[in-house]
Amino acid sequence: MTDREIDLNADLGEGFGIWRLGDDEALLDVVTSANVACGFHAGDPATIRRTCAAAVDRGVRIGAQVSYRDLAGFGRREMEVDPEELCAEVLYQLAAVDGIARAMGGRVSYVKPHGALYNRICRDPGQAEAVVAAVAGYDRSLPVLTLPGSAVHGVAARHGVATVTEAFADRAYTPAGTLVPRREAGAVIHDPDAVATRAVRMATARVVTAADGSQVPLEARSICVHGDTPGAVRLARAVRDGLAAAGVTVRAFA
Amino acid sequence: MTDREIDLNADLGEGFGIWRLGDDEALLDVVTSANVACGFHAGDPATIRRTCAAAVDRGVRIGAQVSYRDLAGFGRREMEVDPEELCAEVLYQLAAVDGIARAMGGRVSYVKPHGALYNRICRDPGQAEAVVAAVAGYDRSLPVLTLPGSAVHGVAARHGVATVTEAFADRAYTPAGTLVPRREAGAVIHDPDAVATRAVRMATARVVTAADGSQVPLEARSICVHGDTPGAVRLARAVRDGLAAAGVTVRAFA
Amino acid sequence: MTDREIDLNADLGEGFGIWRLGDDEALLDVVTSANVACGFHAGDPATIRRTCAAAVDRGVRIGAQVSYRDLAGFGRREMEVDPEELCAEVLYQLAAVDGIARAMGGRVSYVKPHGALYNRICRDPGQAEAVVAAVAGYDRSLPVLTLPGSAVHGVAARHGVATVTEAFADRAYTPAGTLVPRREAGAVIHDPDAVATRAVRMATARVVTAADGSQVPLEARSICVHGDTPGAVRLARAVRDGLAAAGVTVRAFA
Amino acid sequence: MTDREIDLNADLGEGFGIWRLGDDEALLDVVTSANVACGFHAGDPATIRRTCAAAVDRGVRIGAQVSYRDLAGFGRREMEVDPEELCAEVLYQLAAVDGIARAMGGRVSYVKPHGALYNRICRDPGQAEAVVAAVAGYDRSLPVLTLPGSAVHGVAARHGVATVTEAFADRAYTPAGTLVPRREAGAVIHDPDAVATRAVRMATARVVTAADGSQVPLEARSICVHGDTPGAVRLARAVRDGLAAAGVTVRAFA
Repeated sequence: MTDREIDLNADLGEGFGIWRLGDDEALLDVVTSANVACGFHAGDPATIRRTCAAAVDRGVRIGAQVSYRDLAGFGRREMEVDPEELCAEVLYQLAAVDGIARAMGGRVSYVKPHGALYNRICRDPGQAEAVVAAVAGYDRSLPVLTLPGSAVHGVAARHGVATVTEAFADRAYTPAGTLVPRREAGAVIHDPDAVATRAVRMATARVVTAADGSQVPLEARSICVHGDTPGAVRLARAVRDGLAAAGVTVRAFA
Repeated sequence: MTDREIDLNADLGEGFGIWRLGDDEALLDVVTSANVACGFHAGDPATIRRTCAAAVDRGVRIGAQVSYRDLAGFGRREMEVDPEELCAEVLYQLAAVDGIARAMGGRVSYVKPHGALYNRICRDPGQAEAVVAAVAGYDRSLPVLTLPGSAVHGVAARHGVATVTEAFADRAYTPAGTLVPRREAGAVIHDPDAVATRAVRMATARVVTAADGSQVPLEARSICVHGDTPGAVRLARAVRDGLAAAGVTVRAFA
Repeated sequence: MTDREIDLNADLGEGFGIWRLGDDEALLDVVTSANVACGFHAGDPATIRRTCAAAVDRGVRIGAQVSYRDLAGFGRREMEVDPEELCAEVLYQLAAVDGIARAMGGRVSYVKPHGALYNRICRDPGQAEAVVAAVAGYDRSLPVLTLPGSAVHGVAARHGVATVTEAFADRAYTPAGTLVPRREAGAVIHDPDAVATRAVRMATARVVTAADGSQVPLEARSICVHGDTPGAVRLARAVRDGLAAAGVTVRAFA
Repeated sequence: MTDREIDLNADLGEGFGIWRLGDDEALLDVVTSANVACGFHAGDPATIRRTCAAAVDRGVRIGAQVSYRDLAGFGRREMEVDPEELCAEVLYQLAAVDGIARAMGGRVSYVKPHGALYNRICRDPGQAEAVVAAVAGYDRSLPVLTLPGSAVHGVAARHGVATVTEAFADRAYTPAGTLVPRREAGAVIHDPDAVATRAVRMATARVVTAADGSQVPLEARSICVHGDTPGAVRLARAVRDGLAAAGVTVRAFA
């Protein structure tokens, strides 16, 4: 037993027009923070509104899942976007989703970059600066969700913007505390019990068992669960139930 | 001489990416209200930001020029958009541009629908309802710029949203007070002196000389000048100078 | 028993990027003609190539499912597109998919307009002319798939372009031989046996039982089955099996 | 005097919808090869058709200017596109423009990748392979226009696809025969006489004077002139006139 608490976040509203991705309604019953797609990699305005309304109904916190402009590649393709343009694009997306969230009775409470942009700004201070400047220009009180060790932390600190770290319960980690690349065997863990156990350890002991068996310290205030894979909802539910059974309070980060 | 005052509005920021349309900088020195394209018919985020910043610099008021989603057709093609979707699309655009305007030190102060959407909601209460509901959901204090006689007025009144009427100094009017369709001969007036004279009459006598020579009453608190035609800036300047010479104060509507 | 034969067509390749719609592989095992989305309402190039390759593998004929440019609305929203532009857009889509089909060892053998464009050109000779002119300009030997009574027939005849008529086995018909609008009760028939029975009557007796019980003559060389509804594959399979059991040869139209 | 001949190529049809870029009509009177934008970085279908028709009228050869899918960035931003997807995208664009060109009485005779894709495949054999495979799959007889020393040459040779090299008369060269990057001072030469003189030397002596004054051998069968810069047409005309005055035949490459 422990008095620790943790946030659970997932990507939501990632359909576009007629197309859907994942079971948003079911995931919203599990997570405490919803990363809502903002229209650049997914998420037309009607989908954004429906997702925000459903999140508000359940008391789930809303984040803006900003992305490169790349519907055809779902924001997963790295792009050499000029930082000035990137900053304007992030500001546009953030403001648009916040406006819709407010019209639904909620608001955007954090920013989580998506896909290739998420990965890029962990290591590229120039693009990280563009994202953080957009957040600072819109509302300096919004934290950015990122990885431990990301280049975002230093950049955000200079702008007076907070960061929140997250971990992935269903991903293997290296002894250095980084994610095992998806293309490597064993990179993704599919067994719900194993994933739940890892989540509990992340939330209580602040460690993860790396691929080589070593125990790696891991500071994370949120755990990301995936929504677009087969069995995603069952896995997310197992994580939530496992955390509850271990006495961890699942609650949106402060 | 008169103590009347009038607003001058123009469509601005209607480029996209590498493409430009009209001379935004020059027009911003003439008008008092800038209808900023929101990204759906024109206006990428960097263009929106540049336009908002330039408007703020000059003390020109910013409006959100919301549109159907139609970059290829510049928002000029009527579309059978479901009202629920249209409402979400307008809300998205309005919030996005307001967020950028605020980051630049300004804010969106009114909404002017663009092109085919502008025309459609003058006669279609269903789509007018969608637009007005978006405005009301975002900020009920924002007025909608439209034509006298438009269906928007009644719909907006029911939502507690104000409307502001505008007139076109370079367009011919029918005796009924509607615009002569563009495809008809003489629909557009190109002579700067004639246009300026009409603008003065609109602002002072509240009348326009119709195509048949009759004097038609016309209530308008704003005059729209075009930005994307040859000679646009010269025409706009002539209107502004003509108004000043006639003692009309050119000022953003209250 | 009969010596009649009929074609079965379905919309395929209607995903975009990460998003999928319907079970293309399963449907390709049932139909004889595949209406491949061309990129304007659905169908990115990689999806088009994959769909064409799968159709070629199974000996299923390929058609170009041309559409308005409307990814966000899945081509289901009527648009006031200038006929000159529409003609160029249809030509572009048709050529693109034919080029991909040829690279995969097949080719486009017919054109089937999609969604709002399909409906519009049944009654609007101007837009029908635009579509037919594009087909005639590309390859006059390609027939256009449309409804009996459509405005397309006359327009196509003037261009020397053939038309082929189709019927919908799972849709209710009026006594006048037109489709009962989707919004009306009973417009769509869900029972596989009933749908199969209707398909057999369409193929053999050339009649359909209308909503009021009357027998309506119906000339159709192809039957369209839907791919994006729950139970779509089972329904399509029931139609195919029912036709086979009734001695109808299911074969692509000549 | 000399019996040498050279091709002049330029990017054309790079508008989109309402937006135009450069003076296509004037440039078509100067060049012998038109790189027609295919819709992914610029070029809606109506623009493509108009450009192809104008090229056919003047006997100017048509090339497909294929690009990354990036209207907002004008195809100038490098993207990590999966080679399978890239191949399908190039095939789609190439086929679409060839179909339109044929409907206008011409045809696509070569392929010139645009912007970031052009630069990328000069050094990335993986993406070069994707582009060349698309060309080979569509029509193995179409050459690819690229730089001397590009990775494309080897890849194309393996596919049995020809390459043609080009030079830039208005760009400074390094002693190694590569272009001086645009961000460096003196990278672009603006004086029409100087540019014309360089073009003549490229066409007759097969050398270019590098930035350090050294004479660098340069094999190029085509010279690219730019269309979207101020004075572009005057510069292109100076090149053409200079070549004529030097006895060089300006003619599309065989």
